[in-house]
Amino acid sequence: MKIRRSTRLVDMTYYLLQNPRRLVSLTFFAERYQSAKSSISEDLVIIKQTFEQQGVGTLQTVPGAAGGVKYIPFMSKPEADEVIGEICHMLESPDRLLPGGYLYMTDLLSNPHYINGAGRLFAAIFAQKEIDVVMTVATKGIPLAYAVANYLDVPVVIARKDSRVTEGPTVSINYVSGSTKRIQTMTLAKRSLREGSNILIIDDFMKAGGTVQGMINMAEEFRAHVAGIGVLVEDENIEERLVEDYVSLVRLSGVDVKEKRIQVETGNYSLPILQEEAIVEENSF
Amino acid sequence: MKIRRSTRLVDMTYYLLQNPRRLVSLTFFAERYQSAKSSISEDLVIIKQTFEQQGVGTLQTVPGAAGGVKYIPFMSKPEADEVIGEICHMLESPDRLLPGGYLYMTDLLSNPHYINGAGRLFAAIFAQKEIDVVMTVATKGIPLAYAVANYLDVPVVIARKDSRVTEGPTVSINYVSGSTKRIQTMTLAKRSLREGSNILIIDDFMKAGGTVQGMINMAEEFRAHVAGIGVLVEDENIEERLVEDYVSLVRLSGVDVKEKRIQVETGNYSLPILQEEAIVEENSF
Repeated sequence: MKIRRSTRLVDMTYYLLQNPRRLVSLTFFAERYQSAKSSISEDLVIIKQTFEQQGVGTLQTVPGAAGGVKYIPFMSKPEADEVIGEICHMLESPDRLLPGGYLYMTDLLSNPHYINGAGRLFAAIFAQKEIDVVMTVATKGIPLAYAVANYLDVPVVIARKDSRVTEGPTVSINYVSGSTKRIQTMTLAKRSLREGSNILIIDDFMKAGGTVQGMINMAEEFRAHVAGIGVLVEDENIEERLVEDYVSLVRLSGVDVKEKRIQVETGNYSLPILQEEAIVEENSF
Repeated sequence: MKIRRSTRLVDMTYYLLQNPRRLVSLTFFAERYQSAKSSISEDLVIIKQTFEQQGVGTLQTVPGAAGGVKYIPFMSKPEADEVIGEICHMLESPDRLLPGGYLYMTDLLSNPHYINGAGRLFAAIFAQKEIDVVMTVATKGIPLAYAVANYLDVPVVIARKDSRVTEGPTVSINYVSGSTKRIQTMTLAKRSLREGSNILIIDDFMKAGGTVQGMINMAEEFRAHVAGIGVLVEDENIEERLVEDYVSLVRLSGVDVKEKRIQVETGNYSLPILQEEAIVEENSF
């Protein structure tokens, strides 16, 4: 039975969103809906235009016999401003101050609404890089790293600060925490990362960058290439930064423990330009 | 400018999927697309029918002035069989065996494709329960717990087995690991869980159930109510189970370390019946 356009549009939108950055052939959709490829092509044009108008992503076409279409998640500047504005507003609340000038961020880091927003924004920022895997260190950054990985359709690898890893042989490195100057250990299961992978490092909070530097060193042990570094919140108030080339969504510009005041502003991120591409016509597939 | 139906369908589908279990008013959509509520109602009927036909969820309508529509994620029996079949197939590979009869599952637990599938399946299984929060224990179960929380639109709380928690005052409990009989400690930040919450406990692996029992005890400390327990893999090969009322997706029925053989089968889960509900007409809003 042929399926009408409106039903196809809803289901194709669903299917593409569930499978970001995954190539779906026109034949797959044509068979799924018992429809001509020319109709499917027309549907894809509508979906692509809608996604681009709303700034939520685009459809990329891969021509040729093995070709098809991919949903590339994106975020428009206004939506990014809104997401980051909300997060900044949340973080400014003075009851977040913990002893030692730390900030309570667990509610933010455990709320799918914010984490998906930040995750999609990171996916948009790093959309044009080749990334095979997202790396983070346990525990607090895991949901964010997972959200980014989800939009990029790659796995997450999780390094740990303890050695209780029951995953077979491991690689351990030492690193110096930039702010406390203490020597720490980071462990990663050998099996969890392929040699030579392109890695996106994601973490929730960066002070001097010691932990991120630890992950960079860990990547080197696996002969992996660091394709990008993203942190949700960077603390501006440090003497020396160990890491230079990173993207932050939010910047903690001032913490006054005595006066119970927190100053937060937009991080150093910028959005790349969404590449325009036409949907290739049916006969070229 | 009025927006045509095809564009509305794509964008509404996107919007509803991005906001599972969140009430969206018809007025919101009517204003977003400069369209009559009667047209929006017709669109919602199409989306609801498509979602239900494909078994990916339904739209629930809340009548009245404060009413609207909610996307409730679901999974059809055939799709669940497929997801679980894939996971079983993955786990059967003999090179997963680690010393002590443990199973290497990190690749599975870090792959968004499988974790989203298992997450949506858990969300479908517990769809009719009242759940305020998903609880897990660090580290390996976090991505799965986060995926479930995402489909249920609730936050995740993460208990930890160490006490390195920089989140203010904490509650610690002791529990006995069911398989090793060792006394362990579990810590949770006081601030991360509201008293009286309805909790869904999610974990990646359950042997005797000591860790899950620890989470139940932790919940009691917060006068919270355990609304459900879900584990991705249960190990059938134990003498005494500490926890009775749980849902498992996969069951490890036999591990033969000597022969390097792993036997895996479908867990004890069953899908509830998706409640049929009509979209209420425009004039009743």
